[in-house]
Amino acid sequence: MDDLQELEAPRNITIKGILGLLMANISSGKDDSKQVISLGMGDPTAYSCFYTSSAAQDAVSSALTSANFNGYSPTVGLPQTRKAVAEYLSLDLPYDLQSDDVYVTAGCTQAIEIALSILARPGANILLPRPGFPIYGLCAAFRHVEARYFDLVPEKQWEVDLRAVEDLADHNTVAMVVINPGNPCGNVYTYQHLKEIAETAKRLGIIVISDEVYGHLAFGDTPFVPMGVFGSVAPVLTLGSLSKRWLVPGWRLGWLVTNDPDGTLKTPKFVERLKKYCDICGGPATFIQAAVPAIIQGTQDVFFRKAISILKQTSDICCQRIKEIRCITCPCKPQGSMAFMVKLNVSMLKDISDDIDFCFKLAKEESVIILPGIAVGLKNWLRITYAVEPTCLDEALKRLKSFCQRHSV
Amino acid sequence: MDDLQELEAPRNITIKGILGLLMANISSGKDDSKQVISLGMGDPTAYSCFYTSSAAQDAVSSALTSANFNGYSPTVGLPQTRKAVAEYLSLDLPYDLQSDDVYVTAGCTQAIEIALSILARPGANILLPRPGFPIYGLCAAFRHVEARYFDLVPEKQWEVDLRAVEDLADHNTVAMVVINPGNPCGNVYTYQHLKEIAETAKRLGIIVISDEVYGHLAFGDTPFVPMGVFGSVAPVLTLGSLSKRWLVPGWRLGWLVTNDPDGTLKTPKFVERLKKYCDICGGPATFIQAAVPAIIQGTQDVFFRKAISILKQTSDICCQRIKEIRCITCPCKPQGSMAFMVKLNVSMLKDISDDIDFCFKLAKEESVIILPGIAVGLKNWLRITYAVEPTCLDEALKRLKSFCQRHSV
Ligand SMILES: Cc1ncc(COP(=O)(O)O)c(C=O)c1O
Ligand SMILES: Cc1ncc(COP(=O)(O)O)c(C=O)c1O
Repeated sequence: MDDLQELEAPRNITIKGILGLLMANISSGKDDSKQVISLGMGDPTAYSCFYTSSAAQDAVSSALTSANFNGYSPTVGLPQTRKAVAEYLSLDLPYDLQSDDVYVTAGCTQAIEIALSILARPGANILLPRPGFPIYGLCAAFRHVEARYFDLVPEKQWEVDLRAVEDLADHNTVAMVVINPGNPCGNVYTYQHLKEIAETAKRLGIIVISDEVYGHLAFGDTPFVPMGVFGSVAPVLTLGSLSKRWLVPGWRLGWLVTNDPDGTLKTPKFVERLKKYCDICGGPATFIQAAVPAIIQGTQDVFFRKAISILKQTSDICCQRIKEIRCITCPCKPQGSMAFMVKLNVSMLKDISDDIDFCFKLAKEESVIILPGIAVGLKNWLRITYAVEPTCLDEALKRLKSFCQRHSV
Repeated sequence: MDDLQELEAPRNITIKGILGLLMANISSGKDDSKQVISLGMGDPTAYSCFYTSSAAQDAVSSALTSANFNGYSPTVGLPQTRKAVAEYLSLDLPYDLQSDDVYVTAGCTQAIEIALSILARPGANILLPRPGFPIYGLCAAFRHVEARYFDLVPEKQWEVDLRAVEDLADHNTVAMVVINPGNPCGNVYTYQHLKEIAETAKRLGIIVISDEVYGHLAFGDTPFVPMGVFGSVAPVLTLGSLSKRWLVPGWRLGWLVTNDPDGTLKTPKFVERLKKYCDICGGPATFIQAAVPAIIQGTQDVFFRKAISILKQTSDICCQRIKEIRCITCPCKPQGSMAFMVKLNVSMLKDISDDIDFCFKLAKEESVIILPGIAVGLKNWLRITYAVEPTCLDEALKRLKSFCQRHSV
């Protein structure tokens, strides 16, 4: 074999990679008195106000202790799990999904990996949002699918620049990705805009990959509408998971769903490819799958309402505090998901060169972790996660403010 | 986008695919009186004699209910899980593995997928055993790595034909795969043969991928020796999981380990590539990972001994019954894993054309499922799983015998 050195990793920046470096920077700092607060990752499970429902936990526990689910599941997922997810998603659709539309995955992450891998072929390209979720670009790089980026427009509630989409697409374009509710922008698309996206995809003859991992986590004026509503305009692959709405990202239970009432995607060849791909994937634990029907049926509305109301509260805290900081502006009030983007005006700071420099110095001096925008594709922006316990969040934002004051010209 | 029809699945036969067809064949049969017995798959969890240890189940249960592990783990695995696996595997090695050598995966299946994907590059080929485990070929096909097959020699305890390995390898060969204890052959390689494999790999400058998913499930004269023992002869990627030894294939907890005391694999580029690849993978549930230290430390030796002794007993039942069947011969007494290969002499049967025909008629007439050898690469052989409750197994083999008698010339 030729030298192992040939085997390079794609150069993509990952969120975890950069957050790891920021964390390391704190530990090497001098001031040990301040508690580290991370507004970096969408994992609020450490805070008791973001604990999952006991119904969900009990369901998994009893599936485990029954000892009925220690064996393999079909690689596409247990029939009862596929059925439960199909029914859950059908509640918000004008047609009924079938169990066979659902492929159960190890979180939404694996659903992304499957979607990109089954669409990959020599010369293929895929259209990704900027700012976006870096796993898409990384996954495309590993699968030798060219990533082409279209802008989300901050002045228009982070809507997709559909002109750019049309300009980027060619006959090798296999799909475009939409993340709604949005990470990293915290936006929620209107019915009208989603319809326009579907119509654009139809015109271009491409599939829409709709990442709805934050599905239903909407607390603004715009209600969450799943892209699958427009599945008969253009075929949609909907990706989702229990991770965010049920606050259990560690359970690794997600799904890839063909939202495709006209059956464009459901050719024997495509289904065969998808099924075989699932055979090499690993997939989620059988007993967690077995708990999904009870998790979906057993979780009370009050649990969802509570999470939404905390997120609304914490996003408001963010907006208020950010207003007090001169060098940071917020173009769009967040309406959903767990994070949003704010713009950094570096020219107002005396010794900060860019967003990365900002975040490293902030980590070192204030023990606060914020993601530099470059990690999601926007230089000199910041992504702030508000899935954080309110008093912690407030404390972190106060430190952010004093940091900015100290460094301003 | 061009027609979706372009997107074909690799043509590989999968075990699950063929077993599914066999099952379907039963339900369409007439005789509903016979209970279906499957000697088809290595999943014995339905039989109470193959239940997992209560220590293992309790460990997962308490990690879950602690609510401390509902969040993300690092994508390479929890530090305590990596450490526990490193220590577990080091017990049988002449050197100590480090936590950083261990990547925690969604079962051994995902470990296979990761190993092949990180080694893939344009023009690469990989050497696979025949008979073998079909996921390797399927995975290679999806990653555009050319699969080249070397024979395992039944007359020599299914040893690797090392001459063939040398002939197949060229400068584009990235690795060879060894499965020990063997699936589908039920063999266990000697220290000496493993050493020869390592020396061959060294000469060829390739990595050994050692699939030890059946590690320690050895009940014959040859003790199980991990390939990592020869990690300083040639770099070894060891793949494994809790699935078989702990009888929990549904938990999806496996590992990929660099057994490489001289650090050939541990170049910054290779490690970076592996880590980034883990970022797109999904991985196993955090709370199951968290239970691994307690699972490994808490499982009593008596649990392992019991499983081994049942497998020895059931493999003996197989050998005895097979001796009574004229058209089926067993070249090698099984010594490990959960299945072995037997040779079918079709010329002694009047109306059976090949192994597939045999298995379909057997399923239909006797409600017994056996895997046709073609599914693992050997036409007119059969793979019989003996990880089956002894009385069920005996009943299935009696039916097999009467089927063969009925159809013999
Ligand atoms: C947009 C987006 N997609 C997918 C994922 C991955 O989801 P999961 O945790 O279910 O793998 C995330 C996680 O943060 C995300 O933000
Ligand atoms: C040789 C071999 N490798 C890998 C696997 C997959 O193991 P896991 O269930 O841990 O994914 C199997 C399963 O039967 C196997 O036989």
